[in-house]
Amino acid sequence: MSSPSLTTVAACQLTIDVDDPDGNRARVVAAVEVAAARGARLVVLPELVISGYVFADLAEAVERSEPVDGPTVTLLSDLSAQHGIVLVGGFCERGEGERPYNSLVVVDGGRLLAVYRKTHLWGTEKNVFAAGDALAPVVRTSVGVVAAMICYDLEFPEMVRDVALRGAQIVVAPSNWPSIPTVRGERAPEMVKAQAGAAVNRVFVVVCDRVGAERGVEWIGGSVICDVEGYPVAGPAQGDATTLFAEFDLSRALAKEIGPYNHAFADRRPDLY
Amino acid sequence: MSSPSLTTVAACQLTIDVDDPDGNRARVVAAVEVAAARGARLVVLPELVISGYVFADLAEAVERSEPVDGPTVTLLSDLSAQHGIVLVGGFCERGEGERPYNSLVVVDGGRLLAVYRKTHLWGTEKNVFAAGDALAPVVRTSVGVVAAMICYDLEFPEMVRDVALRGAQIVVAPSNWPSIPTVRGERAPEMVKAQAGAAVNRVFVVVCDRVGAERGVEWIGGSVICDVEGYPVAGPAQGDATTLFAEFDLSRALAKEIGPYNHAFADRRPDLY
Repeated sequence: MSSPSLTTVAACQLTIDVDDPDGNRARVVAAVEVAAARGARLVVLPELVISGYVFADLAEAVERSEPVDGPTVTLLSDLSAQHGIVLVGGFCERGEGERPYNSLVVVDGGRLLAVYRKTHLWGTEKNVFAAGDALAPVVRTSVGVVAAMICYDLEFPEMVRDVALRGAQIVVAPSNWPSIPTVRGERAPEMVKAQAGAAVNRVFVVVCDRVGAERGVEWIGGSVICDVEGYPVAGPAQGDATTLFAEFDLSRALAKEIGPYNHAFADRRPDLY
Repeated sequence: MSSPSLTTVAACQLTIDVDDPDGNRARVVAAVEVAAARGARLVVLPELVISGYVFADLAEAVERSEPVDGPTVTLLSDLSAQHGIVLVGGFCERGEGERPYNSLVVVDGGRLLAVYRKTHLWGTEKNVFAAGDALAPVVRTSVGVVAAMICYDLEFPEMVRDVALRGAQIVVAPSNWPSIPTVRGERAPEMVKAQAGAAVNRVFVVVCDRVGAERGVEWIGGSVICDVEGYPVAGPAQGDATTLFAEFDLSRALAKEIGPYNHAFADRRPDLY
């Protein structure tokens, strides 16, 4: 059992396959159940967790897209109600125009708290998705103030700074990190950026990555949970389907003091930049 | 010998002692000579490299302060002329008001290219220094476009983004990183932030730290040189007096493309932040 002052969070790093949405759905249901049973109050799923990621073309992405009241968000909302948790996961959102959005929802005990459309599109996402036009949501949930962004968004320090200044205690990032060659013994730059985002802003960061080769694309499977100093407290995962757990004292993300003389926010110089 | 397309840079991690300015000076002269002899065209020294750092009080800091045409900057300028190098180092600059500045100079073949006054003050620096009121300089030198900031400045992603957007290829940061407890097997957060600053902006980063216990303060001695992917290519140093060397292909810092679809700068959303 956790201490009452600690909040358990989980990142469910799942196998996702664009050619097996039923399997994706079953894996989400099973993983969320396990995470909740182990005490997680906030559970983070990967980007595009039911639809899969590697769409053949715009037509396929449109065909897989759903409105916010469609089956994927309904499933996530129902799971959050069933387990009494905050759940964050990505889905392919039907857009007003031709293109869908690479979106996520934050649901809490059956309530839809936020929909967010990825604003920084990676790689061939630019061929199939429209980019969102709003900054990441910062929402008061039953476990604290949660900000949610998607994968490549987290690599822009402006994004993390923005949500931290708006009061986020935990920044979650459903992700699909494609595998690229890295230097032996070194963490992938995405992980280093996640760590730095946490440390710079003194917020907790939860990256939920995915695994499973998909139409020839490989993934890092490097989910990581960082504390407010930027240190990984769970992960980086090693490329397998796994759920990471961590316990946060969320009050630490409200204390921006760095020793007796410094303050992560007050030391900024917005008069200059 | 370096390939003609590669530029050798050096970070001279020196022992500094506020009670031994003559020794500090001698160590600078010797280290710069060795670095230049090994082919370094850009040599970075620590913060407050001649004066030392741990001033007893404002009066002592004032007493150690010098104008830009004082002996420290003259020495650094002369060394840059003698060795035909770009040299960056910190000094205690006499101010217009009561308090000195924690400053640096960029000198190139005997020419003074920039003076910069640290804008983000760390710890008890707030008791003795005035903070600068200008962003870090970005200067065209004989080895490329160099930006220079000091220690804690580098921990503000706004600072690194700003100089990168203004064309910096190499960001140098004379530093005095005080030793604090870190998690076993993990790099200090300062190093992670330096790596992330390089990776986010696709610039080279050279942090020159210092060593030598000084009036009871210990230092990390963790100088590090990062490539444009954020990987350390020299260091982190292990707390000893040492000079790190690296060879940069500076054209890599001009290419902000990330694969065929992405671009570190063009993918930003300044319409949102």
